[in-house]
Amino acid sequence: MNQTQFAKPIESHLERFNRYFARQMRSSVPLLNLVVRYLLRSRGKQLRPMLVFLSAGAAGGITDRTYVGAAMVELLHTATLIHDDVVDQAPLRRGLASINAVWKNKVAVLVGDFLLARGLLLAVEHNEYDFLRATADAVRRMSEGELLQVQNFRKRRTDESMYLRIVGDKTASLITTCCRIGAISAGADTAVQELLGTFGEKVGIAFQIRDDVLDYTSRTAILGKPIGHDIREGKITLPLLRAIANATANEAKEIRQLVRSSSVRNGSVERVISFVEQHGGITSAMDTACTLVEDAIALIEQLPVSEYRTMLIQLARYTIERNK
Amino acid sequence: MNQTQFAKPIESHLERFNRYFARQMRSSVPLLNLVVRYLLRSRGKQLRPMLVFLSAGAAGGITDRTYVGAAMVELLHTATLIHDDVVDQAPLRRGLASINAVWKNKVAVLVGDFLLARGLLLAVEHNEYDFLRATADAVRRMSEGELLQVQNFRKRRTDESMYLRIVGDKTASLITTCCRIGAISAGADTAVQELLGTFGEKVGIAFQIRDDVLDYTSRTAILGKPIGHDIREGKITLPLLRAIANATANEAKEIRQLVRSSSVRNGSVERVISFVEQHGGITSAMDTACTLVEDAIALIEQLPVSEYRTMLIQLARYTIERNK
Repeated sequence: MNQTQFAKPIESHLERFNRYFARQMRSSVPLLNLVVRYLLRSRGKQLRPMLVFLSAGAAGGITDRTYVGAAMVELLHTATLIHDDVVDQAPLRRGLASINAVWKNKVAVLVGDFLLARGLLLAVEHNEYDFLRATADAVRRMSEGELLQVQNFRKRRTDESMYLRIVGDKTASLITTCCRIGAISAGADTAVQELLGTFGEKVGIAFQIRDDVLDYTSRTAILGKPIGHDIREGKITLPLLRAIANATANEAKEIRQLVRSSSVRNGSVERVISFVEQHGGITSAMDTACTLVEDAIALIEQLPVSEYRTMLIQLARYTIERNK
Repeated sequence: MNQTQFAKPIESHLERFNRYFARQMRSSVPLLNLVVRYLLRSRGKQLRPMLVFLSAGAAGGITDRTYVGAAMVELLHTATLIHDDVVDQAPLRRGLASINAVWKNKVAVLVGDFLLARGLLLAVEHNEYDFLRATADAVRRMSEGELLQVQNFRKRRTDESMYLRIVGDKTASLITTCCRIGAISAGADTAVQELLGTFGEKVGIAFQIRDDVLDYTSRTAILGKPIGHDIREGKITLPLLRAIANATANEAKEIRQLVRSSSVRNGSVERVISFVEQHGGITSAMDTACTLVEDAIALIEQLPVSEYRTMLIQLARYTIERNK
């Protein structure tokens, strides 16, 4: 399954959207345009704009408002990725050098702020206050989720409920917003907005669980960034929590100490990875992700049959089947 | 003249505002509340909330909306200061360790994002879309202005028109927004909003010129941060541009080379400071700031006489008379 396949019913929309999106990022500052051109060369999976278009289609029909909503969330998403890379001192993003690596933190922080402002301004310009309402809260949740993660990293005592809260805030909040904005842009009623919002929340959590699993199971060449990154950072994610739950008390203690140690060496990273595999951490985490996706699918099966709904279902499955 | 003096007619409002503002910053994330408490201990001059309240008073009267507007701009201003300190790797802010110095860049970027989102959300919650319109554009201009400065720093060829554009974008844009939001919150008509907006733009540019002058003339103990910082950073500001214009071609060339050199040493910083003083850079820059302030005052003298208007005039003069 290829991610472009479920873009089929919205292909011409996405093409038009890409031109529209590039226009929204233009500025009168040459340095900014240089960074933006670099960003546009390394676009990601475009999961979020796709979710906006498919949700709009499934909720009644794509409109001009859908373009504004999709551009808005993609601007905010791009902004948060740039800030995330500063926060994580990440050298790579999508297989290319990150903005902070090429232009330093200074430019990365400012470009992130510009794109954040540009996204919100776009909604203001189009009087899309319901979009703003759905989005400003997601931006708050995203920064709170990241801060919660930093705090837990310091105390190094993440448990599953904390993990789920962090994942909900930092990843699912914007995906929920995408689905909700899609529904709003189609003129759907509140019940449909809620339904698609909940679909997005569940898919969003599943998406992040898959990301955290890939950090254990993928390879650098496929992922476009080094694997074992979370462990090196001391981040305790679902696969590890589940493996710890399955292990003996002594093994669990040893592994927690290994992850707690301020500098996790390469040998230790391999040790943690094989511990997680051996104690079924991957399988158990993926089971949870699958349940979330199936729940999400059951929800939107309440919507009328359409090619958009079909593609939303495929996209939901893709979030947990993908290898990068 | 003390800055608390012109707060007289709005004293009780400012007291109530401080409690209101602290409430807006609350979060469910303990680490965030810790940072917020630290921030609240080291509040600045509160120039921006004061401008909102005084503008509202001068434009017809302070309302509940004025509180929302003042909190919004103060949240955004606080956010941008935190990001600025990351960008500039500043160790101090208002005489205390900066957030990036205490909690590292990671936390500083995220807290800035949180406060930015919180400010915009506040307006959304109160359906204050005109505030958003005035503000989202200021956030865009602030990041563009900073990026323009970074870009010019790289090319090291700032001239006066570029300097004024950067100052307008990075400092005056939010001050304009404060005055405009004050007028909107008072229910003033568009002409009064424009008039107060232009007042703010002029005062804002004068304020930044004074800041740039203080970087040459103040002392670390008064300013709460090291002087000569701009020169060390390779930032060419108005006092230096004016001194270069007054000097012989040879002297100017020598100084430009000194500032261009990638690491400006302590001896060189003193050399540049005395060059600027000797060639009337300080006086000339301050002349421009004074003219801007007098123009700004002439504008608001078109408004009805009130204690608020009087205090706005005093506040305008204070921006260029202050020593820190």
